[in-house]
Amino acid sequence: MSLTFNILNQTDAGGRRAELILPHRTVQTPVFMPVGTAGTVKAVPQDILESLGAEIILGNTYHLYLRPGHEAINRMGGLHKFISWPRAMLTDSGGFQVFSLSALRKVTDEGVRFRSHLDGSSHFFTPEHSMDVQIALGADIAMAFDECTEYPAERTRAEESLRLTMAWAKRSLVHFRAHQQDVPWLHTLHEDRVPPVSILRPGSDAPSQSLFGIVQGGMYRDLRRESAERLVEMDFDGYAIGGLSVGEPRDLTMEMIAEVLPLLPPGKPRYVMGVGYPDEIEQYARMGVDMMDCVLPTRAARHGLLFTSEGRLNIKGKRYAEDQSPPDPACQCMVCHRYSRAYLRHLMHVGEALSATLNSIHNLAYYLGIMERVRASLHPQAS
Amino acid sequence: MSLTFNILNQTDAGGRRAELILPHRTVQTPVFMPVGTAGTVKAVPQDILESLGAEIILGNTYHLYLRPGHEAINRMGGLHKFISWPRAMLTDSGGFQVFSLSALRKVTDEGVRFRSHLDGSSHFFTPEHSMDVQIALGADIAMAFDECTEYPAERTRAEESLRLTMAWAKRSLVHFRAHQQDVPWLHTLHEDRVPPVSILRPGSDAPSQSLFGIVQGGMYRDLRRESAERLVEMDFDGYAIGGLSVGEPRDLTMEMIAEVLPLLPPGKPRYVMGVGYPDEIEQYARMGVDMMDCVLPTRAARHGLLFTSEGRLNIKGKRYAEDQSPPDPACQCMVCHRYSRAYLRHLMHVGEALSATLNSIHNLAYYLGIMERVRASLHPQAS
Repeated sequence: MSLTFNILNQTDAGGRRAELILPHRTVQTPVFMPVGTAGTVKAVPQDILESLGAEIILGNTYHLYLRPGHEAINRMGGLHKFISWPRAMLTDSGGFQVFSLSALRKVTDEGVRFRSHLDGSSHFFTPEHSMDVQIALGADIAMAFDECTEYPAERTRAEESLRLTMAWAKRSLVHFRAHQQDVPWLHTLHEDRVPPVSILRPGSDAPSQSLFGIVQGGMYRDLRRESAERLVEMDFDGYAIGGLSVGEPRDLTMEMIAEVLPLLPPGKPRYVMGVGYPDEIEQYARMGVDMMDCVLPTRAARHGLLFTSEGRLNIKGKRYAEDQSPPDPACQCMVCHRYSRAYLRHLMHVGEALSATLNSIHNLAYYLGIMERVRASLHPQAS
Repeated sequence: MSLTFNILNQTDAGGRRAELILPHRTVQTPVFMPVGTAGTVKAVPQDILESLGAEIILGNTYHLYLRPGHEAINRMGGLHKFISWPRAMLTDSGGFQVFSLSALRKVTDEGVRFRSHLDGSSHFFTPEHSMDVQIALGADIAMAFDECTEYPAERTRAEESLRLTMAWAKRSLVHFRAHQQDVPWLHTLHEDRVPPVSILRPGSDAPSQSLFGIVQGGMYRDLRRESAERLVEMDFDGYAIGGLSVGEPRDLTMEMIAEVLPLLPPGKPRYVMGVGYPDEIEQYARMGVDMMDCVLPTRAARHGLLFTSEGRLNIKGKRYAEDQSPPDPACQCMVCHRYSRAYLRHLMHVGEALSATLNSIHNLAYYLGIMERVRASLHPQAS
C-alpha cells in the first residue's frame, strides 16, 4: 500500500489538519519540507533537523543521479540509509533541475537530452528513467516527470508544455506502478525501524512508495483546470501544483492555487512546489495546501537573511555589530537561545562556516514553527 | 587570584594528572584545546563542542583584534559572552599570526609594525598592547607577547630572537599585573554563572586572568634552558614552550620539550603550543605536558583527513564511495555513530558544508578521546 491520509479537521476556508502516514514517518500536515538537495539540508546536521521537528525532507533527483548516482545509493539500501535520515523523504522528478541547471537541452516527446552542469557529460531523462531513478533512491514519495512551464509563457507554449507534461504523467504512473515494489527498503523496513513503522498494522500490505502527479498549465486558469482533471483521472497517490513561484506576481500564484485546489480529490494530499515566503506558506496552508517545500529558508540564511517575528533581518548590517539581542527575541530555537545578532553578524562578516549553519537552523526553526502554529489553529479543538 | 593547579598524581615518566582551576571552568589535565581562531572552532557549533567534552578552547588575538576588534568584544562583556562559550578560554598573544600572516613587518625592540592581511591597514603591536587586547578579550589565560623563532635559524638569529622575547616577556608581565583587574567579567562572573564558579570558595579572592610566559630559543638546548630559567625567575602563572612544530624533525621537538620540562616549576601548568599529531599529544602528555593546542584536527578535517584508531583516512578516496562502515569503527562519537564513510565521502566530493562540520566533529572527538584515555591512565588508581 502507498500512503494513508487522515483528515482530522477541515476549516470553512478549506484548511485541513491531517496526518500523512508514510512508510518512514507519520507526518503531521500542513507541513513544510526542508530541501536537502544533494542528500543534505545544506549546512545542517541530521540530528539538528530532527530536533527542529522536521518530519519530511526533500532530495533532488537530478543532483543525486549525477553524484553519487542512484545505482550506488540503491546498492547502499536507498537514500534514507545513505544519508542516515530515518524519517520521511520526497524526491522531485529531476525535471526542474534539468530545465534550470543543465546545458544544451533537447526536448522531444520521448524525453530530455541534456548535458550535466558539472562536467558536460550527456544524459537522457525520460519519464520511465525518472521513475527508475526515484525508485532506486527510494524516497517515501516520488514525483511524476514534468516540464515546468517558464514564466511568462505564451498560450501556445503553455498548451504544448502541458501536452508534454500530461503524456509524461501517464507514462510516469504506468512505469511507477509496474516497478514500485523495487524500492530498496521494501523487505527491510521492518527490521531497520525501532519501533516498527506506524503504517504496519496487522493485515495491512507492506508499505511502498507513493507517486504524485504535477498540475501545470502556466498562468492559464483553463489549462490548470484541464491539467488537474486529467491527472485526477489517472489516479495518483497525491497531487502537486508545479510551475508556480517562477517569477509571476503573488496574486497570480494565489489565483492558480485557488483555481486548482477544488478540483483535487479531498482525501489525498496536496503539495504546492517551491513556495515560499513565511506569510505565503501560512496563507496557502490555510487555503488547504497540505505540503510545501522551498530552498528559501536555507538559501537566504547563507546570504545572511533571517526571517523573524519582527520581519526580515539582514544580519550583515553594521547596525548589528554590537547588538547583543537574539536574532529573533520571540523565537525559542537553539540559535536564538544561545547566540546574539552581533555574533552571527561577526561570523558572516569574517566568512566562517558556522554562519551558514546557525542562520539555517534559525530560519528552518522559524518556518517549521509557523507550520506548527498553523496546525494548532486548524486543530479540531481550535476550529 | 589567578589559576589554581592541583596535581592529583604523577608518574615516574613525569606525566601529571591534575585539575586546572580557571575562572570559567575547572579543566581536567592533560588537556587538548581546540582552536577557535576567529571566535569559532571552525564549522562546529558551541553546544557540540560542549557535548564532545571540550573544557577550554583557544581564541586568536590577531584575528579578533582585526575583526570584530577587542574593544567591541570588551563592550559586549568579553569573548566568552560574545561567542557564548561559558567554559574556559585561552588567547594567544597575536605574535605568531603577526609573523606568519601579516605583510611588511618591521620589528624593533619596541614592538612590531605590520600590515593587516585583510586590508593592508597598518598596525603596531607591543607587549603592552598585546596585554591590553588580551585583557579586553578576557580569556581565562593570556599569553606573553613573543617572537616565534623560525626554523631553521642560525644561532646568532636565535640568540637575538630570544633576547627580544625575554624583554617582551618582562614587559608583558609588568603591564599585565598592573591591568589584569580590568578583565570584563571581573565583577559579573558570580552573577553570570549558574552554578557559581568552582574557584569561588569562601574567603578566596575574586578570580582573574592568568598570564603564561613562553619559552623560546630555537633548537638550541642551552638557549632553551636560559629562556626557561629567566621566565621562571619572572614568576608567571604558567609556562608555555613555543617555537616548536615549525618544520623541525620530530626527534628535535621531543628533545627540546625534554630539555625544558625539568626546569619549569612542577606546581604550575605547562603548555606546548601548536602540537600535534595524535601520537604526539599522547607522548608529550605522558612526559608531563599539561596543555596542548593545534589546528590540525579541524584543518585536516576540512581537507578530508580523518584520524582514526586504524590510522589516517583520506575520506576523499574513491575506495570509500560505497563503504558503509563508520569513519572509525572503534569510535563512539556522534558522527561515527550515525554516518558512513560513503556519506562523508559524498559530502566532501560534492563540496557540501556539512562535510567540514562532520569531519571536524569526528577529529575533535578523536583528539579529546585520546586525552581522556591518557588522563585515565595517569589517574592515582591506574598509576
